[in-house]
Amino acid sequence: MPDILKDKPYLAALVRERLTVLTIGLDTDIRKIPAVLKSDVLAFNKEIIDATRDVCIAYKPNFAFYESMGAKGWDILEKTIAYIGDHHFIIADAKRGDIGNTSSMYASAILDQLGCDAITVNPYMGRDCVQPFYQDGKWVIILALTSNEGSDDFQKQKLASGKRLYEEVMQTAASWGDDTNTMFVLGATHPSEVQACREKYPDHFFLIPGVGAQGGDLDAICAAGLNQDGGLLINTSRSILYASSGADFAEKARDEANNINEVIRPHLGGGSFIPYIP
Amino acid sequence: MPDILKDKPYLAALVRERLTVLTIGLDTDIRKIPAVLKSDVLAFNKEIIDATRDVCIAYKPNFAFYESMGAKGWDILEKTIAYIGDHHFIIADAKRGDIGNTSSMYASAILDQLGCDAITVNPYMGRDCVQPFYQDGKWVIILALTSNEGSDDFQKQKLASGKRLYEEVMQTAASWGDDTNTMFVLGATHPSEVQACREKYPDHFFLIPGVGAQGGDLDAICAAGLNQDGGLLINTSRSILYASSGADFAEKARDEANNINEVIRPHLGGGSFIPYIP
Repeated sequence: MPDILKDKPYLAALVRERLTVLTIGLDTDIRKIPAVLKSDVLAFNKEIIDATRDVCIAYKPNFAFYESMGAKGWDILEKTIAYIGDHHFIIADAKRGDIGNTSSMYASAILDQLGCDAITVNPYMGRDCVQPFYQDGKWVIILALTSNEGSDDFQKQKLASGKRLYEEVMQTAASWGDDTNTMFVLGATHPSEVQACREKYPDHFFLIPGVGAQGGDLDAICAAGLNQDGGLLINTSRSILYASSGADFAEKARDEANNINEVIRPHLGGGSFIPYIP
Repeated sequence: MPDILKDKPYLAALVRERLTVLTIGLDTDIRKIPAVLKSDVLAFNKEIIDATRDVCIAYKPNFAFYESMGAKGWDILEKTIAYIGDHHFIIADAKRGDIGNTSSMYASAILDQLGCDAITVNPYMGRDCVQPFYQDGKWVIILALTSNEGSDDFQKQKLASGKRLYEEVMQTAASWGDDTNTMFVLGATHPSEVQACREKYPDHFFLIPGVGAQGGDLDAICAAGLNQDGGLLINTSRSILYASSGADFAEKARDEANNINEVIRPHLGGGSFIPYIP
């Protein structure tokens, strides 16, 4: 068990404290970081984190970007996660999923050893491939309807039952856990589907990629998906990380996070959301 | 481009040279390697490889097992792949798949930098997530119908079109590439489906996990799936790697590989297979 239990009340408290559901994707591309850092990915991550700690509730390192640097990348990932510390929710964006004994190894690597609070999991291989990621105090985030064009290829396929595949995935996966340990990935590029999923799953958290570089409409997603706990983790990566290629990159990243929060906050102040007043 | 083009004629030639389609899964679990090696995973892999080079055509390192060792694991993976060399087909069993820019990073890490010849890819996110793995001289191995119980949950779901999801995945993915750069994963636990897929895709290679510890019937799979090029990569991991927990582990691993080949070889000698006589 982690020192701090990053459970549902913890997430809701973070939302109330920081008045945002912003999640920053640490998709750090060594080819894109400002020249002033001389390709030091860890230094870049630390400056981004320091500049944005109080304006987001979660960080989501994207494992591909670290694996592309080999053993050194894995070391940077470990140090980045340790640097984030205990006052944010940490999502391993790894999209893993394999037969039981293999998923257990991934769970051990990512949840136990790296100490992430949650991991994104691909449901295609079914229940026994997802089950090993369910661990005390950790969250499983199931890919349902992703933000990319290819989500049409299979996720939106109509089943004989009349449901779409992603709806079947959500219904089945919701029974593997509950709203205290299971989230779903729903792309910001599908606002009407996000709204329908919110109606069907009023209390689940959804991880929402696809605003920013991918073109999802932030305002529409907030209207469609926020609930009384916040209920969303809205991720932005490139538009924050690479807001400037100059020495002011961290300051500009913070400015961009604040711009996003200005869109989110009016939604959190009204509707069914009850702001926390200490 | 790699020094040696590991294309379809190369694979067929390997099958003819070694009279087998055996693929050895390097799912090396640090907790299971013989005590005599004092937890040295790289030394274990090297001994297994040296003992089995001439009795298999491919090695398939399972990335989870290396990631679970952190940065050190990635280093062992690099050294293992380099040690295998150019006379085997090397499959990265990584089951990746993410939005385009992320899949590109995985492709760079695994195909370019590690130098694997093929990677297993999860199709759930659709075409644009698979496309970056198509690179000159490399193979994409799409998960279709996996060997585990959970393959019933979604892969066998019936679509409104009447097809099963895995059939739709195969038909769609077959159009993303062709039989010179695309393979499918079909579990050994589904011999009748393997036979039906062979009829529909006579010239594609299939990667077949699930014999050995998972209970697939090797003889039935050979009868159902072999074609004139071999056409299968039949993977075994645990029953070879852990054939003995003593100092004779490498010798016993080779014995087990030979036992498997004794089942495979009669199928290669007859039917539509034409053995290569130099």
